[in-house]
Parts: sequence; structure tokens; C-alpha cells
Amino acid sequence: MKKLSTTVSALLVATSTLAADAVPDIRSRALEVFKPLPSTTPAVAHNPITPAKIALGKALFFDPRVSASGVFSCNSCHNLATGGDDNLETSIGHGWQKGPRNAPTALNAVFNVAQFWDGRAEDLKAQAKGPVQAGVEMANTPENVVATLKSMPDYGEWFKAAFPDDADPVTFDNFAKAIEAFEATLITPAPFDAWLNGDEEALTPDEKQGLALFMDKGCSSCHTGINVGGQGYFPFGVVEKPGADVLPQNDRGRFSITNTADDSYVFRAAPLRNVALTAPYFHSGKVWDLKQAVAIMGTAQLGQELSEGEVTLIVAFLDSLTGRMPEVNVPVLPPETDATPRPNGKIVKK
Amino acid sequence: MKKLSTTVSALLVATSTLAADAVPDIRSRALEVFKPLPSTTPAVAHNPITPAKIALGKALFFDPRVSASGVFSCNSCHNLATGGDDNLETSIGHGWQKGPRNAPTALNAVFNVAQFWDGRAEDLKAQAKGPVQAGVEMANTPENVVATLKSMPDYGEWFKAAFPDDADPVTFDNFAKAIEAFEATLITPAPFDAWLNGDEEALTPDEKQGLALFMDKGCSSCHTGINVGGQGYFPFGVVEKPGADVLPQNDRGRFSITNTADDSYVFRAAPLRNVALTAPYFHSGKVWDLKQAVAIMGTAQLGQELSEGEVTLIVAFLDSLTGRMPEVNVPVLPPETDATPRPNGKIVKK
Repeated sequence: MKKLSTTVSALLVATSTLAADAVPDIRSRALEVFKPLPSTTPAVAHNPITPAKIALGKALFFDPRVSASGVFSCNSCHNLATGGDDNLETSIGHGWQKGPRNAPTALNAVFNVAQFWDGRAEDLKAQAKGPVQAGVEMANTPENVVATLKSMPDYGEWFKAAFPDDADPVTFDNFAKAIEAFEATLITPAPFDAWLNGDEEALTPDEKQGLALFMDKGCSSCHTGINVGGQGYFPFGVVEKPGADVLPQNDRGRFSITNTADDSYVFRAAPLRNVALTAPYFHSGKVWDLKQAVAIMGTAQLGQELSEGEVTLIVAFLDSLTGRMPEVNVPVLPPETDATPRPNGKIVKK
Repeated sequence: MKKLSTTVSALLVATSTLAADAVPDIRSRALEVFKPLPSTTPAVAHNPITPAKIALGKALFFDPRVSASGVFSCNSCHNLATGGDDNLETSIGHGWQKGPRNAPTALNAVFNVAQFWDGRAEDLKAQAKGPVQAGVEMANTPENVVATLKSMPDYGEWFKAAFPDDADPVTFDNFAKAIEAFEATLITPAPFDAWLNGDEEALTPDEKQGLALFMDKGCSSCHTGINVGGQGYFPFGVVEKPGADVLPQNDRGRFSITNTADDSYVFRAAPLRNVALTAPYFHSGKVWDLKQAVAIMGTAQLGQELSEGEVTLIVAFLDSLTGRMPEVNVPVLPPETDATPRPNGKIVKK
């Protein structure tokens, strides 16, 4: 499709007409590339999900006492009220330090092939152990987390109920497993799912045109699968590296995990469900406007300057990935006891 | 009652027997001093409460974008998962600055005669404007809050629904009124209420003994009314000033509001509902152990060294003030737009 020097609305009409002829069976094409969300909580490896484990995981997800300072919970940076992330360039953590990368959403994260922008955690239970120990995030230690949780009798009971076969259930491993179980419930069915499942009316004509463009232009080569991304690793700047503001030179992405030259500036393709809720964008969090993010992807990854009309349609499709949040009641957490380690907001330089 | 050099359990039996004879009509005495919580949301002055206003207020209460940094919401320091406060000595706010006083619980706060430790806000709508603008808390301005809220069309609709008669409903005043409406729903009926309402079994014998002591010793002279406190102002250290660790010399309490010598080190008597959930204690937040706090109150306010058994019984009564949290679903907040002011975590020295 050529860039047209016309108004956007005229372009929309033109594109709509064009694609109605050109893309007769867009759903079967889409089903080869994407997959609708399941209607129930998915299974995860080596961690049977039970209601007791979900309830415990929810309590832990909302408990700021798992951070050294007592200020941050998982929900601080993966805020379920704001799309499962924190809407910051990069998160602010312990001691007002800024994290190195934009916080990804916890919503539907269970469907990613691996966790973190560089995929260094193979699943959510591995991921859950990271921020707790990161000096710029929660700055805590596994020992202190376990001491904190063991100090509150209710947690002892909840861990026992969640891990009934364990002699000593309150462990850092089980802490992480419970959080994974809760996060596996954070699934947000979207209009796109309804449409993939056969409801023709679930997407507007513009959204369908956007989807067609998303596939035709090549976006879906990387942003694929159930999470419309999150399935593989790709260099940021396949065709043309974006400027250092968007792609800071000192963060070489997956290279720091694999030490392989080919992995320099390689990142996990961002999962795009709820992307309209999770500005700012990219691992650097430098781009606030979704249209601008799409345009940058066009030049950097596809070598194409997308027209304003094309960007608008693709964003319309991306909006159809905004899903319905599960209802989450604020948990009632147990009170501290004399044995609970006291919050410590001091910044320890390593 | 003299301090007995005996085991606590023996003391409990002794006290129990004593009081069963000595305090035949403890409930009528209690009803002269305390009042049970109402079963419905109370009315507040100059702010009719409607479901639309409550829903808006809940969204605002959970929205970190009302802080300059985008990090803190009302719920950060008045965390509904942990007794309506943050379990910190004093809160950590913008730029990792520490606030001057311990964060009081938002639960049942609608029943306090005035808000803040020094009562400087006459009600919750006045209170809600404080932390947003405090440099060490949210460090925001009314103008920036309004600009933030106006930038998100959903908020525009929600304010319109909550304030249907206002031509320009998105204002800082209405922001505060909506938060007050939501907070008025944060009522936690406790066993003590059931007992006041006639359910004899709602309190254990120990709890009733503790209540009798609470009244006999004079605690209820200040900690009175529906919130078992929060009704009046009293010097901290009526009889004997506690040490500077607990009562820091540089915080003269209500004196800073009234500039009256008599108000030096005067504070609002702490409301004691859910006190078992809201350690650490006092405006300084220096005492973590509720028993220790009760003992300090004995010497400082009553000039009495309470025995360990008496303290234990009083704490048993205080535990009966722990109430049932209302169910609060995490709200789904609207996404930012191009017009939303960006988060600004910079620390501006004034």
C-alpha cells in the first residue's frame, strides 16, 4: 500500500474498500498466526494450580512487606489497576532508584515463552524471585522474605494449605510458585479473542483492516501467538537501529544473558495484549505515543515508512487487544508480629 | 489492681473472677462511652454520597497518577490490604523522603472529629487535599492533578456522573469530595460492635475484662466514642512525658496549628479501631509492640504502671476492635493520553 497524500478519513474508506476485496479470509489467516486466550486458568510447569495457592499468591502479590523497605509490593510496578504495569519510563524502586528497563505487564504474562525483556527467567516462578532481590527494586533477600512470612501465623496456615505435602511449606520457592499461580489467573479476554472465536461483530471494520495490515506488513512475524508477541527474540533494529534515546547503547539486551554476539540488542518481542494501557513503550520506556511506537517499529524492524493511515489502522487493531480485567478483591493481609523483620529503607551500596 | 508477681494465666483467672462480680453491667457502662458502627455508609457534611461518587472516589484512591512521580496513590500509605495504613514508622514519599508523622488508618476515619494527628483538616475532603500537595508525599499541585484527570476521557465521564449539576465537574474540590465519599464506605464492623449491639458471645471473657480495665483505668476518658478515640485533643504525657524517642521534641503537635501554648505536644487521641493491624504506634511511629504502647499510655497519660496482666487484658479488648474489611475490587483505571502530564520523580527543593 502506498502512502497516500489525502486525509486520514478518506484513507480509511479507501483502505477499507481495498481490503474487503483483497483479504477475503482474514480470520483463517489470523488463526494460523494467533491464538485466542483460553477460558480457564492455564496449567503451568511443575506447579499445580489450586484455589489455595492462588489465594496465597494474591496475598503475596499485594504485600509490600516482601520488600526491604516495606514500600513496594509486586502490585506497585505491576499495578492491576493500570494495565498490570506502572506507566513509568522505568520503575522507581528502593531508595528512589530507577530500574534499567520498562516494567512489562503482569497480565497474560503466563503465556510468554519466558519472562523479562531478555527472557532470562524461564517462567513466572523464576521471574517472581528477581525483583524481590534486585537492589533497585525491592532490595530484599530470600532469607528476609521467608523470615517475614514465617513471622505471621496466617501466612503459615496459607502456605500449609497451598503446599499441603511440604513439611516446611514457607520457602522462597513456594513464595514464587504461589505468585505464579495467582498471575496465571490474570487473563484478559479481548474483542480480538471473541473475533478469533467466530464473533464477526467483535471487531470493527477498521480493526480488521488494522489486523490485515499487521499481518501483511510483517508485524506478526515477531508479534505472534497467543500474546501477540512474547514468543521469541529479535534484534531491535533489524533493518535500521533507532536512535540512542529509544535504544540506549549500554543495554545490549539478551547479549548479557547469552554472551553471544548475535544476541546484541536482541529483546523478546513485546507481547501486545493491553498495549493501549501500558505506555510508555519499548524496553527503554522512551516512547509514550502508541502511534509513534508503531511507526518506529515500521522503520526499525520492517524498513517501511508506514503512512499515518496505516499506523492509525494498526493502532485500531491493537486497541482490540485491550481485554477485560478479572475481578480482584484487595486481600486482607495478616498483621506483623514481634518477630517480623522491621522495614528497612536504607540504601546499601554494593 | 496491684501488680501481681504471678503467671499471666493465673492472673487472667483471678481477674476474670474478680470482674464477673465487680462489673455486673459493663455493657450499659460501655454504651455511655462508646457507640457501635452504623450498618450503612454515614452521611458527611456538604457532600451527598452517591454510588457514582463512591466509584469515582475509589478510582482516585487507587490512582498513582495523582502523585507527581506516578508512584504513589492514596492506597500506598493507606493500604486497604494492611489495615488502611502502611506499617511504616513514618511514610516514605516522593524522592524517598520520610514523612513527619505515622500515617493513620483510612478505615473508619470518617468518624473522627477531624483529620490528621493534629486535627488540622476538619473532614476527609479537606484531608484528601493534603498529601497530594505535600512535598514529602505526592509532591503534586492541584492544577497538575486536574490536568491529569481531565486528560483521560473516562475520568471526565465519571466526574460528570458523580457531580451531575456541575458545569465543570473535574475540579480539585470534587476530587477531594469523591475520595471522601469512598472513604466513608471504609467501615469495619468488629466483635466489639456486635457485643455493644447485644450479642453477649461476641466478646470473650478476657476481652470484656480488658474493656472493664480500659474504662476503669481511664483510657476511655480520651479514647471514646464511635472510633474509640479520634474525638478530642490531649497532651501526650499528661502525667509524665515519654522519652524523646517516642515524643520527639521538634514536633509540638497541635501547637503548630493553633499557636497556643496549651496545645504544645497536644495530639488527637488515636482512634483505636483496627489498632492491632496498624503498628507501629504513636504519631512518631516509634513503638511496634501494642503491649508496650499500652504500657507507655499507662505511665504517660494515667500515671499508672499497668501490670503485665492488665496490659494483656487491655490488648485483648483492643483486638476485639479489629473489624471486617469491606470488599474492595481493584478498580480498572483509564489509560493516559497524549495530554496526560508525564510522571516527574524529580525532587524540587523549596
